[in-house]
Amino acid sequence: MAASSSLFSSMMPKEAPALNILKQSKDSLCCHWNISYKSLDHLKPMSQRNPIHCQALKIEHPSSLSVGQKFQLDDVIEAQQFDRDTLSAIFQVTREMENIEKNSPGSQLLKGYLMATLFYEPSTRTRLSFESAMKRLGGEVLTTENAREFSSAAKGETLEDTIRTVEGYSDIIVMRHFESGAARRAAATAGIPIINAGDGPGQHPTQALLDVYTIEREIGKLDGIKVGLVGDLANGRTVRSLAYLLAKYNDVKIYFVSPDVVKMKDDIKSYLTSMGVEWEESADLMEVASECDVLYQTRIQKERFGERIDQYEEARGKFIINKDVLKAMKKHAVVMHPLPRLDEIAVDVDSDPRAAYFRQAKNGLYIRMALLKLLLVGW
Amino acid sequence: MAASSSLFSSMMPKEAPALNILKQSKDSLCCHWNISYKSLDHLKPMSQRNPIHCQALKIEHPSSLSVGQKFQLDDVIEAQQFDRDTLSAIFQVTREMENIEKNSPGSQLLKGYLMATLFYEPSTRTRLSFESAMKRLGGEVLTTENAREFSSAAKGETLEDTIRTVEGYSDIIVMRHFESGAARRAAATAGIPIINAGDGPGQHPTQALLDVYTIEREIGKLDGIKVGLVGDLANGRTVRSLAYLLAKYNDVKIYFVSPDVVKMKDDIKSYLTSMGVEWEESADLMEVASECDVLYQTRIQKERFGERIDQYEEARGKFIINKDVLKAMKKHAVVMHPLPRLDEIAVDVDSDPRAAYFRQAKNGLYIRMALLKLLLVGW
Amino acid sequence: MAASSSLFSSMMPKEAPALNILKQSKDSLCCHWNISYKSLDHLKPMSQRNPIHCQALKIEHPSSLSVGQKFQLDDVIEAQQFDRDTLSAIFQVTREMENIEKNSPGSQLLKGYLMATLFYEPSTRTRLSFESAMKRLGGEVLTTENAREFSSAAKGETLEDTIRTVEGYSDIIVMRHFESGAARRAAATAGIPIINAGDGPGQHPTQALLDVYTIEREIGKLDGIKVGLVGDLANGRTVRSLAYLLAKYNDVKIYFVSPDVVKMKDDIKSYLTSMGVEWEESADLMEVASECDVLYQTRIQKERFGERIDQYEEARGKFIINKDVLKAMKKHAVVMHPLPRLDEIAVDVDSDPRAAYFRQAKNGLYIRMALLKLLLVGW
Repeated sequence: MAASSSLFSSMMPKEAPALNILKQSKDSLCCHWNISYKSLDHLKPMSQRNPIHCQALKIEHPSSLSVGQKFQLDDVIEAQQFDRDTLSAIFQVTREMENIEKNSPGSQLLKGYLMATLFYEPSTRTRLSFESAMKRLGGEVLTTENAREFSSAAKGETLEDTIRTVEGYSDIIVMRHFESGAARRAAATAGIPIINAGDGPGQHPTQALLDVYTIEREIGKLDGIKVGLVGDLANGRTVRSLAYLLAKYNDVKIYFVSPDVVKMKDDIKSYLTSMGVEWEESADLMEVASECDVLYQTRIQKERFGERIDQYEEARGKFIINKDVLKAMKKHAVVMHPLPRLDEIAVDVDSDPRAAYFRQAKNGLYIRMALLKLLLVGW
Repeated sequence: MAASSSLFSSMMPKEAPALNILKQSKDSLCCHWNISYKSLDHLKPMSQRNPIHCQALKIEHPSSLSVGQKFQLDDVIEAQQFDRDTLSAIFQVTREMENIEKNSPGSQLLKGYLMATLFYEPSTRTRLSFESAMKRLGGEVLTTENAREFSSAAKGETLEDTIRTVEGYSDIIVMRHFESGAARRAAATAGIPIINAGDGPGQHPTQALLDVYTIEREIGKLDGIKVGLVGDLANGRTVRSLAYLLAKYNDVKIYFVSPDVVKMKDDIKSYLTSMGVEWEESADLMEVASECDVLYQTRIQKERFGERIDQYEEARGKFIINKDVLKAMKKHAVVMHPLPRLDEIAVDVDSDPRAAYFRQAKNGLYIRMALLKLLLVGW
Repeated sequence: MAASSSLFSSMMPKEAPALNILKQSKDSLCCHWNISYKSLDHLKPMSQRNPIHCQALKIEHPSSLSVGQKFQLDDVIEAQQFDRDTLSAIFQVTREMENIEKNSPGSQLLKGYLMATLFYEPSTRTRLSFESAMKRLGGEVLTTENAREFSSAAKGETLEDTIRTVEGYSDIIVMRHFESGAARRAAATAGIPIINAGDGPGQHPTQALLDVYTIEREIGKLDGIKVGLVGDLANGRTVRSLAYLLAKYNDVKIYFVSPDVVKMKDDIKSYLTSMGVEWEESADLMEVASECDVLYQTRIQKERFGERIDQYEEARGKFIINKDVLKAMKKHAVVMHPLPRLDEIAVDVDSDPRAAYFRQAKNGLYIRMALLKLLLVGW
């Protein structure tokens, strides 16, 4: 939305009323809950026998409703916009999303809402994940993967004009763009929420959120964890965003394990140091594996090497996660990967319960369900 | 539909019953209203507490139900098929569409209906507008933007065979084609309604309808208005269709303001003269701006100039609508544009309330909702 | 599903309970019927006045409920997986699908279910047919026609990894692939049902099913019929699958009518002989036409001839179905074609009631509705 692309939080009175019926700005009557994000654990889907068109969640009144904070989420533009409390609140909603059953009232939370997936470059995986999230909540989708045909490349229309047109057709826009900063420009123009589904080498904030959520879900905590980032640390925006978000937690230690040509850049290292996060570089994957709670593997991206195929081949084969690495890992630790993978994780790792990468992909669905809910109908 | 691609009207008895339940031809039970289009103002969405699967609108019985006319709309093929009364009736339904609220019964008018967007050339903007219209009314969509893969180009299938197949899958076909006359051929074959979403250099009737609707909505009338058509008047089917439709109203005056190389062609001028419409050509945009109710700007289409880039550049910069033109315009007048725009309207015009082009784009949604409703479930 | 890609049948006790409520494996409560497929004729859609979110069919208790068999359909991979009893059961469900009315409870059978159409090569016709089937039953669809962008071609991801990701977003995957055997690999990986919508030169089982269904629907029986297969019998997987399935019925006779360069291959001929099916080759289309119940015409596929254009032209013009052939045919016989057609059936044949090919295409919709229902919610 044009008003702001960041987050606001405001203190609410103790013993806040659990449920308010408000007139929404977008000419539809909807139900909002001004409740503490800490009380979200008590939300339960209503009985299937009482169909309610508007989103409806039964609230079991907890004995002690703690002091509440209401966040307003206008847009999702970059990982940096989220503070620790907001992440925690989003993750609680995400957890609720995991439990929504087919044809339950929860599955109709976004009935009547229309999401436009405005993709200036194709990304089938990300698009399907968002579209599934919207439809799992009863919403509808307008799809385009050739949005460039809309745009300056074709006829010279500005992104701003395109956004002004598409916002007339939909209630929320999920945008993928080839230019860094495009999502911010769209949000500055639009009167409806924008979600950045990746803008060029810039941000891919929903990937960052699902990564942190997966760590919390798998390990049970974020404070005090040890995370090994492995592979292409120079070019992967995923590991850069993850390092950034992990710095918000206490007593985190990060290991960087990468071929020399694709080492983590100094900006992130300096940032971590300034935030008091311990980090070290290592060339010994086995030792890091034995120390970590999370081993986050990434793909060496061939396209970054241009004609230096020999460098690519050398980098690519250096740090493979296989059965031997699994043996070195702790019992409770997990292997993560943003996918797609090539051979940087051996296929026979898949059957180990510590292989978390397909669960991680599924968490992407739940994170996106939570964000769509938060942006369209609020907490 | 095969039966006819034009409009029929039939006189109905006075005090016609407001609501009939009829067995539809397409094996589904639906509700039809044989009511005067003049009574449509009295249609109100029902209370949200009475969910009805079939389309249902509560009719407040007016004290004097005027004599009714029932139009039957079978297909939308060309702007010429609409007479003044039909336009007026369509615009009344369109106005109703503006007021349909999320999750109201009106938003379920087309529940159970399936629209196929059969696009032989991509036009994301038009496609999204139609798909949004269908989904805003509770209908569903089958999408294809690569319909050529269906067709003669690929394997030699005729358009007629394709239509016979697709009509088996859907209840209405919205078709975009690269050949003039393709929509008429489709309508002659199909047993379900066809909407022409543009066929080559031929027709784009829903654009023409939304333009006229926007003028009525913004200015409050169509009789007695003065309209300046600016820009590429030779190649733009938009302005040609608009001139054609404006001729159906009384005391209209049209100004043509265009670079010499893209002047309005003689066929339209002769038609206007024969219909008693006053028109003049002018090279003075400021003077025209000061006279008009509507300034309809269009894009100079580079692709029409081929290698004559110098002619294009000259034509392109000649008639720009900017703050100075705004100053010359009347207080109640508006600027329209079919979009996308390049720089023929300066960006700082956007914030003026008289900049109507994004409202115009939004009206496209409402017009298409109205047409889908009329074609699928009648008045 | 990973468990099995074939069919199981198990004897059930007489007087089996007609309706069980079971907890589905995929965290949703659904209704299953353990009923004899022979009792499916008694299923009737419920009154529209009792909306039930879960699939619900009213069962009129027949006086004699015959001994039941319950089939479990996990995936649809190849025509060979279906035995005669299963075909009969599927066709009975298909017949029910023909009668589902708009906005009836039957039209909501798959409400809450999500189908992914994962097409590694575009096939608009097949895709729209599946998507229409899913939406006609109240289900939702995630679409991709550029699934190669997911895959090894682009970044080296295996089909198995792609399936593991997409199954996290959907409840069933309809897959089209360029490699023979791809559907079987997908089914071996997936925990959700897979439908093969064509894998390279391999299988296209839903086409085979709709062909057999159409014959039964048009002729009234499958035992004792005479079928003429005409055109490209060497390359058409359609006619090969059809010959295979017809061998399951009694007293079938098959005529092969094809240009010399595209004759039926020996493997099918040997198979038919081994199954006791009478067959003969003929070059006399008129005589075959006078004998047959079904004349199944196919397109000569130009792309199979490479540079031998002269051979193509000769083959193409050899066996055309026109008015003269119609005259030779029996009154009750029909002409079928998998579509698209070029000129191997003259256009003036279309108006003859024996021209069954567009009804055949429509049957594809009903067969796919039946399969989606059977795979997602059972008999």
